[in-house]
Amino acid sequence: MFEPVKPFFALNEAEEFQEKGIYLLGIPFDGTTSFRPGARFGPDALREASYGLESYSPYLDKDLEESPFFDLGNIPFQASRHDLLRESFFSLTKNLDLNKQKILTLGGEHSISYCPAKLYLDHYKNLTILHLDAHTDLREQYLDEPYSHACVIRRIVEEMREEQTLIQYGIRSGLKAEFNWMKENNTLATSFEELKEKINKVTGPIYLTLDLDFFDPSFLPGTGTPEAGGENFHNFISLLKLLAQKNLVGADVVELSPMLDVSGNSNVFAAKVVREILLCMKN
Amino acid sequence: MFEPVKPFFALNEAEEFQEKGIYLLGIPFDGTTSFRPGARFGPDALREASYGLESYSPYLDKDLEESPFFDLGNIPFQASRHDLLRESFFSLTKNLDLNKQKILTLGGEHSISYCPAKLYLDHYKNLTILHLDAHTDLREQYLDEPYSHACVIRRIVEEMREEQTLIQYGIRSGLKAEFNWMKENNTLATSFEELKEKINKVTGPIYLTLDLDFFDPSFLPGTGTPEAGGENFHNFISLLKLLAQKNLVGADVVELSPMLDVSGNSNVFAAKVVREILLCMKN
Amino acid sequence: MFEPVKPFFALNEAEEFQEKGIYLLGIPFDGTTSFRPGARFGPDALREASYGLESYSPYLDKDLEESPFFDLGNIPFQASRHDLLRESFFSLTKNLDLNKQKILTLGGEHSISYCPAKLYLDHYKNLTILHLDAHTDLREQYLDEPYSHACVIRRIVEEMREEQTLIQYGIRSGLKAEFNWMKENNTLATSFEELKEKINKVTGPIYLTLDLDFFDPSFLPGTGTPEAGGENFHNFISLLKLLAQKNLVGADVVELSPMLDVSGNSNVFAAKVVREILLCMKN
Amino acid sequence: MFEPVKPFFALNEAEEFQEKGIYLLGIPFDGTTSFRPGARFGPDALREASYGLESYSPYLDKDLEESPFFDLGNIPFQASRHDLLRESFFSLTKNLDLNKQKILTLGGEHSISYCPAKLYLDHYKNLTILHLDAHTDLREQYLDEPYSHACVIRRIVEEMREEQTLIQYGIRSGLKAEFNWMKENNTLATSFEELKEKINKVTGPIYLTLDLDFFDPSFLPGTGTPEAGGENFHNFISLLKLLAQKNLVGADVVELSPMLDVSGNSNVFAAKVVREILLCMKN
Amino acid sequence: MFEPVKPFFALNEAEEFQEKGIYLLGIPFDGTTSFRPGARFGPDALREASYGLESYSPYLDKDLEESPFFDLGNIPFQASRHDLLRESFFSLTKNLDLNKQKILTLGGEHSISYCPAKLYLDHYKNLTILHLDAHTDLREQYLDEPYSHACVIRRIVEEMREEQTLIQYGIRSGLKAEFNWMKENNTLATSFEELKEKINKVTGPIYLTLDLDFFDPSFLPGTGTPEAGGENFHNFISLLKLLAQKNLVGADVVELSPMLDVSGNSNVFAAKVVREILLCMKN
Amino acid sequence: MFEPVKPFFALNEAEEFQEKGIYLLGIPFDGTTSFRPGARFGPDALREASYGLESYSPYLDKDLEESPFFDLGNIPFQASRHDLLRESFFSLTKNLDLNKQKILTLGGEHSISYCPAKLYLDHYKNLTILHLDAHTDLREQYLDEPYSHACVIRRIVEEMREEQTLIQYGIRSGLKAEFNWMKENNTLATSFEELKEKINKVTGPIYLTLDLDFFDPSFLPGTGTPEAGGENFHNFISLLKLLAQKNLVGADVVELSPMLDVSGNSNVFAAKVVREILLCMKN
Repeated sequence: MFEPVKPFFALNEAEEFQEKGIYLLGIPFDGTTSFRPGARFGPDALREASYGLESYSPYLDKDLEESPFFDLGNIPFQASRHDLLRESFFSLTKNLDLNKQKILTLGGEHSISYCPAKLYLDHYKNLTILHLDAHTDLREQYLDEPYSHACVIRRIVEEMREEQTLIQYGIRSGLKAEFNWMKENNTLATSFEELKEKINKVTGPIYLTLDLDFFDPSFLPGTGTPEAGGENFHNFISLLKLLAQKNLVGADVVELSPMLDVSGNSNVFAAKVVREILLCMKN
Repeated sequence: MFEPVKPFFALNEAEEFQEKGIYLLGIPFDGTTSFRPGARFGPDALREASYGLESYSPYLDKDLEESPFFDLGNIPFQASRHDLLRESFFSLTKNLDLNKQKILTLGGEHSISYCPAKLYLDHYKNLTILHLDAHTDLREQYLDEPYSHACVIRRIVEEMREEQTLIQYGIRSGLKAEFNWMKENNTLATSFEELKEKINKVTGPIYLTLDLDFFDPSFLPGTGTPEAGGENFHNFISLLKLLAQKNLVGADVVELSPMLDVSGNSNVFAAKVVREILLCMKN
Repeated sequence: MFEPVKPFFALNEAEEFQEKGIYLLGIPFDGTTSFRPGARFGPDALREASYGLESYSPYLDKDLEESPFFDLGNIPFQASRHDLLRESFFSLTKNLDLNKQKILTLGGEHSISYCPAKLYLDHYKNLTILHLDAHTDLREQYLDEPYSHACVIRRIVEEMREEQTLIQYGIRSGLKAEFNWMKENNTLATSFEELKEKINKVTGPIYLTLDLDFFDPSFLPGTGTPEAGGENFHNFISLLKLLAQKNLVGADVVELSPMLDVSGNSNVFAAKVVREILLCMKN
Repeated sequence: MFEPVKPFFALNEAEEFQEKGIYLLGIPFDGTTSFRPGARFGPDALREASYGLESYSPYLDKDLEESPFFDLGNIPFQASRHDLLRESFFSLTKNLDLNKQKILTLGGEHSISYCPAKLYLDHYKNLTILHLDAHTDLREQYLDEPYSHACVIRRIVEEMREEQTLIQYGIRSGLKAEFNWMKENNTLATSFEELKEKINKVTGPIYLTLDLDFFDPSFLPGTGTPEAGGENFHNFISLLKLLAQKNLVGADVVELSPMLDVSGNSNVFAAKVVREILLCMKN
Repeated sequence: MFEPVKPFFALNEAEEFQEKGIYLLGIPFDGTTSFRPGARFGPDALREASYGLESYSPYLDKDLEESPFFDLGNIPFQASRHDLLRESFFSLTKNLDLNKQKILTLGGEHSISYCPAKLYLDHYKNLTILHLDAHTDLREQYLDEPYSHACVIRRIVEEMREEQTLIQYGIRSGLKAEFNWMKENNTLATSFEELKEKINKVTGPIYLTLDLDFFDPSFLPGTGTPEAGGENFHNFISLLKLLAQKNLVGADVVELSPMLDVSGNSNVFAAKVVREILLCMKN
Repeated sequence: MFEPVKPFFALNEAEEFQEKGIYLLGIPFDGTTSFRPGARFGPDALREASYGLESYSPYLDKDLEESPFFDLGNIPFQASRHDLLRESFFSLTKNLDLNKQKILTLGGEHSISYCPAKLYLDHYKNLTILHLDAHTDLREQYLDEPYSHACVIRRIVEEMREEQTLIQYGIRSGLKAEFNWMKENNTLATSFEELKEKINKVTGPIYLTLDLDFFDPSFLPGTGTPEAGGENFHNFISLLKLLAQKNLVGADVVELSPMLDVSGNSNVFAAKVVREILLCMKN
């Protein structure tokens, strides 16, 4: 069973997927983190921080309280075994019917995104994966672990079918070989303008995987592998307004590491980001 | 009597309003804070931080040391009773003659702005209140407290006469009803360009109430209710250059919460902001 | 209604007093704090920290999981109005039957202890109040507030009947007049031996009000008014073993201020203290 | 190969086991940590902190600079795979000849102690393992991981032969079943006096596994699972003076988690502890 | 002139030595600190923290408010030049008449103690210097600086005449040669009992130089060179009660480094220590 | 000899200047710091942080691992004597042949830049010094110290010959007289456009002295004298791309103060900045 929590924005709690609606679930896992661990505390810190925010978004003129959102709580904690985590995730979501319910998953480190992404790739034949991140995450394996957070996009790409597309943006750190791969496959938008163009062309459903280190560390210091030169909040809101006109069917938000920002502001920032994404999602 | 302090930028200390001049006074109050308290430590932290800055502003080409500024110290501490705070404030400022002296008040939380704003509204028939903030602060009451920091602009509006005007900018959090009120009353400038236009049209005296969470939290993490998507320092300086050409007669700077930023940088940022405002004020 | 939370040690959640048992409830209030606020975050931080501890106590050889404990959640937040807080508390506990249920209240600041103490004093004619604290808390009023945390024991004393007794221990800060009062009324145990003697003589029910600054700040830095020279954990456990042989019918644990200890260790310490007290309480 | 570092107390660096001497090596692993991770940063933080200490110990009247110590650096980092860690450790120490060289291993979390303990148990038939810790660490498995830091003493016990003995001290947290096991096997010294008695009876070689949460968290806040009621530094020094008269042949010091103590003092405390142990070790 | 400050415990401010009384003055200097700097912020942090304490001491049953204390403020800041600091100190104290006034000096690092100690050694022929510290501070020179904080007691000893005596206590870190010097000169009390004996024999005036790292770092983490195994607060109070029966004519309290303890508790601890010493001093 | 360290990005270690190549060396000095000290910890923190970054730069499409870089370690520590520091630096670099080797120096406070700048000014007749900073640093002397970090550019200017040029950018704090000097000597670029123009005109070798407070404090909170209104990372990269087309022969990066940013992100930011500069330097 999911573990009970104080729910996000005091949304409705849910113990299982039942009604039609958008469901929040946390995966408190950071077992493959190579630099500074702590993302395991992300989901609960994000919920806690939501109590300092309003449920109304002036950007989208929508209110969480008027929408069918549910908070399921967290996947049971796993210290390091990604294989057991996947097992647990797929077992707990076996009743999820993506025709009726959608999910927004809270990390944990980026390696957890493999789980929801696989569900969505299996369900939507023409899915576009939108990957916002500072890092390429395209390694074959890292420190002997193929499901490391440094490999997650590689693992996701392996699950993708021909009609499915990958768009990457914000990437500013990786190996030369990874950057070459992005060039060859034309996945990387190198400017915000190029990103908007790429998204404008998408006609099918979109799944967003957002590594919070996509944002400049000045906005969100509480992340394990901060990388200078990130995107700002205003452009992110512009992007969301664009996605709100498209068909955003699922998302995950990962790599919040609360212990690394004693002010707690990173949690508040991330909670606002999650609020906005929830309000953009279609069901 | 005011409580003695180590004065801002080693300005002249003053025990009472006497000479013509601009007077700084602190109100260490955070009794209605609903999220994270600590703004009570704002005034002294701001003074302390000023010692790491120069008294000269290259933006305005003016120097605090060449100007008639005085630091009065703080209003005696009140833990929670806003009614007693107002009493104490109005009693301690009863000799203030706005024809001879002007004041810049340091919070404390935003609820304290009611006090100086009322003095200025009573004195200047055609006053414009310029409200820079992340939050609407327009609730009728909040948690049973009509003088809560979430209601202060509502309380100030109630004191305004017909010839007096409210301009709001930076607001990005509130209830839908509050945003609707701003639209109906056309108080909110939704872009920096629109703000400059509105200010350019002002011919009378201006009072500035600046909630420091107006700024993006990346610049000032030390505030109780941080809200992503705020304004930057460069635009603030542009705004001040504009105000320097107008008649800025009073100001308050509120919601610095020093405990929330262990680096102390928020205090230094706020002290610089206060230096610039002091240098813009007319007497 | 109480506000839902992630319950202490994953105990049973309860929405109301129903079954026979010991109930935990939080009062997130710090409205009269005169120095460093933040005790409002105590109840939730304490619950969060409990997840890093075992439910078994080797000191008492008892286990929380084998006992009828319930977590009610928190009293709704009040920023500063102690009168409204009392109203809310007494209304929410009106169905509490001390013959069937007992409560352990989590602060918040010490001023909240007035509420449960009054319930117990009204119910148990021969109650002994055991007051563990660094501070006298015996002022008539403080900063115009008679229900300030600096006055709470004075307020409690006023509710006491002749057959009811006050024992104080750990006190090491206050006015000379307060220390004189304690001498005249022979309430203060000045050594641990004297405390044990006093408790050994108690035959009736005991209510414990524990201000966490009773402990030396080296053990619990996260408190608003730390005072050197406090008691250690070993003596506290000895005291509890003594109380376990008596009739401990109620308790409150107050003045944990999580923001003041970024390591989070104060929360863990306090959660362990609460675990031990819960296991000592009789129902 | 070991990874190079700035060596402890500027001791001699070594790339391999060669000369007769005492060798320091770090294992930056925290992959099974169930509460707060970060012990991976322990070895380097400990070395860094050693530069603020003197190399001379007034307690033992000995100086590190006059002794044959070498710092090997660290085992290559593993994020989560304890099986690969063991493989790497045993491969890198295959040239270690315990007749000529001794090792002091720096964690990392407690699970790493299995590695050096096994080497010593294999070599010394009549070894005594001295286990100083706050936690029992005797679980069969924890969160599906048999080599979890909550199971390490269980794993070590499984490697022990009949003539080999376990002495435990400081333990104050665990399951009831684990405490029962310790009683049945008479491994736990429940007072410092009892500990000294037990050690006085030892005639053979001693291996010390020291989980730093053995100490009271007031001395060492920087550890993942702090537990109130720990031992103090003075008793530890008394214990070491006793061990100095015995035959201490190896040791590990684990569970320093530098990120949890921003003052850095935990690192300094731990470095002093390591200095004293090094000076007690026989070669 | 001294630099003005918010005075300790709201004591009387003074601009010069005039009336008979005990004077507090700060020396914000940390120019020779070899490990972690920041003691320059000690004097002001100590004053700030005093506002959270009572002026009454239950240990000594005396109240600061009833005594002739004055706060002079600080010596002007010097970044690194100890020669200029000495010059400035002796010039600013040239009107001090130790027959009428006494001083308690607040550091800054320990090197500043040379200044007041020299004044007292010159004035009192039979002075006893009581040195409480973790470190020997007896080096001839350190990093090319003879007035380093690692050499201050050596420099003071050089100023001592035959009838003047040095008592040292708490020392637990230094070179072997320094420990040998203390043995040869019989200056070190190696137990609290021995210390009390030594002090009981003193008949003349006593000057106390207290390096706050004398205390265990668990009580005062905010110091530059923390050293495990320090003294506790209770023994310090016992010592002060003994000194109160003797003739304590002067004191300095050094090495508080506020930035190293973000909780601020070290400042509060040190302020209480200073309060107690002030109340013990004779005039 | 240089002091050994864990080298930057695991570059080759070097004990002396030998091969042709670019050499990194640290100067852990903050003896003249007037506000908040701690820059002495900059060089090692920067190296430590480099391990969380990739050695490949996607901005410049170059990789540190493919280039002839060496890390020499640090100049021996000096607490306060700038004269001895200069002596030590010039002695340790006496074998440096700028025809074969180039250096990038890591501070330490800005005062250390005098040392490498003098070497370069002596060697390159037509050198351009590019000074990026928040502060003028043009005082004749500061607090009696002519080599203070507030005077370093003045000292450098005094070493410059007629054909050598100074370009300053980012400056936003100083005395009016210092701003006037910059105007008179036309050294200050007041916009990024103007800066690029000035650099475009340079034909000879360029030496960069980068005080990290040049950047906005939101990017790098860990610096001693933060000053709002700084430059962002994107413009810095644009500038470097321009410098990569010129002849950048040397550089220093100063004023990182790790203790002031407990998140450690400032160190990571600075390490990335150093990586980019290294990759731009010509040899």
